[in-house]
Amino acid sequence: MSIRVYMDHGAGRSVDPRVLEAMKPYYTERFGNPASFHSEGFKTLEALNAARGSVAQLINADPSDIVFTSGATEANNLALLGAALRNRKKGSKVMRSAVEHISVINICKELFRDGFEVVECPVDETGVLDLAELERLVDDDTVLVTVMVANGEIGTLQPVRDAAELAHGHSALFHTDATAAAGQVPLDVKELGIDLMTLSSNDIYGPKGVGALYIRKGVRVKPHMIGGGQENGIRSGSENVPGIVGMGEAARLARQEMEAESKRLTALRDRLIEGVLAAIPESYLNGHPTERLPNNANIRFSYIEGEALILSLDDLGIQLSSGSACAAKTLEPSHTLLACGLKHEEAHGSLVFTLGKNNNLDQVEYVIRELPGVVERLRAMSPLTPEELR
Amino acid sequence: MSIRVYMDHGAGRSVDPRVLEAMKPYYTERFGNPASFHSEGFKTLEALNAARGSVAQLINADPSDIVFTSGATEANNLALLGAALRNRKKGSKVMRSAVEHISVINICKELFRDGFEVVECPVDETGVLDLAELERLVDDDTVLVTVMVANGEIGTLQPVRDAAELAHGHSALFHTDATAAAGQVPLDVKELGIDLMTLSSNDIYGPKGVGALYIRKGVRVKPHMIGGGQENGIRSGSENVPGIVGMGEAARLARQEMEAESKRLTALRDRLIEGVLAAIPESYLNGHPTERLPNNANIRFSYIEGEALILSLDDLGIQLSSGSACAAKTLEPSHTLLACGLKHEEAHGSLVFTLGKNNNLDQVEYVIRELPGVVERLRAMSPLTPEELR
Repeated sequence: MSIRVYMDHGAGRSVDPRVLEAMKPYYTERFGNPASFHSEGFKTLEALNAARGSVAQLINADPSDIVFTSGATEANNLALLGAALRNRKKGSKVMRSAVEHISVINICKELFRDGFEVVECPVDETGVLDLAELERLVDDDTVLVTVMVANGEIGTLQPVRDAAELAHGHSALFHTDATAAAGQVPLDVKELGIDLMTLSSNDIYGPKGVGALYIRKGVRVKPHMIGGGQENGIRSGSENVPGIVGMGEAARLARQEMEAESKRLTALRDRLIEGVLAAIPESYLNGHPTERLPNNANIRFSYIEGEALILSLDDLGIQLSSGSACAAKTLEPSHTLLACGLKHEEAHGSLVFTLGKNNNLDQVEYVIRELPGVVERLRAMSPLTPEELR
Repeated sequence: MSIRVYMDHGAGRSVDPRVLEAMKPYYTERFGNPASFHSEGFKTLEALNAARGSVAQLINADPSDIVFTSGATEANNLALLGAALRNRKKGSKVMRSAVEHISVINICKELFRDGFEVVECPVDETGVLDLAELERLVDDDTVLVTVMVANGEIGTLQPVRDAAELAHGHSALFHTDATAAAGQVPLDVKELGIDLMTLSSNDIYGPKGVGALYIRKGVRVKPHMIGGGQENGIRSGSENVPGIVGMGEAARLARQEMEAESKRLTALRDRLIEGVLAAIPESYLNGHPTERLPNNANIRFSYIEGEALILSLDDLGIQLSSGSACAAKTLEPSHTLLACGLKHEEAHGSLVFTLGKNNNLDQVEYVIRELPGVVERLRAMSPLTPEELR
């Protein structure tokens, strides 16, 4: 089977060929250490700073406020552990939404073990943060509030500007994980009032193993990676120059092409949702109907398991997730869907479509054509399926 | 000037073209997330495990004992913070040699701030660990001893097997940073009695931004990077598959080619040392005359500053370091040379030559030809130079 319909961009993306071209010289030709006091070092230092500028531009930040990391997970570790531990005197409470990425949730657990009170702010059934509840929960003892820009699994966009304002009303720091959103929706850290923002390289078609944390000037964080004092003492370790150059180029391209690409993806997404819901009885859209990422469709099918769907679709050349790939190994139901009020069995029967550059309308139509048969077959085998759907 | 004599392999290396070839498909073709439950995920998971096997083979470890990280600095963070914090009940003392890498030293400072007693074990004037002193210092309250395999700056090889034995005599864990040594000298974690070993990808001609920590089965460490539970829960964050594949290929090549390449480098190194010492009065070899890395020559020139030497040589197309690139930005004298008993001004006048694949005898002869003139010119300008050397 030569068909390959990869709709799992939330789990992993190809590197844009232009990004790879930009990276190549730094593997074999310009490989000096940016800390070295000679021409080879100066060249890579220059490349590092250019990349910093491009990443900064994507979110309207100052280049000096960008710290490169090994990925979004490390940026989240630096942001949350770093800000909470460094500003411990301010308070003992950390607040997060109920639908944060698994890394944010687990880092908050670590803060809890370290003596912080972790407060979870609920979301409504579409996954949108309950701002009234956040307002009630945030207080002067709150050191940090973290709410993602958008959930990569259900696609729901969050009211981060309002959440940041509520945090700042009590002098708490505001962190947002923009991993799933960057490159799809415009981000302006100044306009949104962000203190700390997590970015991932691969999620904007840059290489894996690179990320960045925006740290607003004046915000103090305790370094997470200790060593030679690179990245202004905030993140040690010899810089991954080719990776950082790649992330820079990816950010530059994202800034240029985001508007057109997001428009294209939105149309594909809407056709996909409409086509699947029309073709399959008892299928439902998870997340918000309109306030969602351009590339995300999360659809629930009653009476069947996501895992079985994934494997059957893989046989047809279609690659998808049944939840967050980052938590796939746990086999637990998605905490995001549970937070939206779904039952365990409902959460298990969901498919996550994350579209991207490699997808087109033909592929969407192929999925709309093939999926009903797969669902029907699986439902026929399920003891839960009611008679009229068999 | 088209001459380019890069002798700063300790600061940064080119990626072997064969390594880059092995990595490429994972950027643009095989980009699935290894945690995904579909064929694209299975393919990258397989690649990940193959790389784990290759890295394990380089040090005679079991593949399941290899944890991939974002580099040697992260591996050191995971090893030292992880082992000390996780095994705190065992004791409150951490021991390190006086010539460890800056990351190890700074991580130990963090452990000190966290309540551990950090004990520094001295070295002799050639940089070799004082084993008698280590024996005196290690006690039942010692939770961890860390001694590098070789110092990348002065090249001195350490008696890690003996040091490990002393640590184990008091049930302390033994960590070794093999960053500078791997790929140059044979390493066998079982034969050496290692509990934790840090490896760097770039130092074996793999990509930057990747490293690994060997963790002997049964040794418990607290995870440093918290998140989705990748790498068996020890190191979270979506895996940098192309980078890891690159490190795997680099390890495979290192294992095959190390013996011949180390022999070649040893000959170049010895010619370089002999040629420079013969041509330049008041020049001295730092480190051990024979127990040193095949690629390392560290030479001290009285009356002048390393920085000035570096810049003058750069004009001649020769790239070198005056100390550890990882600490270059601090402008402080090398703690390694100070630990060997050198005075501040002596430490400042040293050059570190780290040879590698790109170097050949012609380049070595070029350096031997050019260096005396540079030293002479700089000495002529130095007020410290005695009359007879002007």
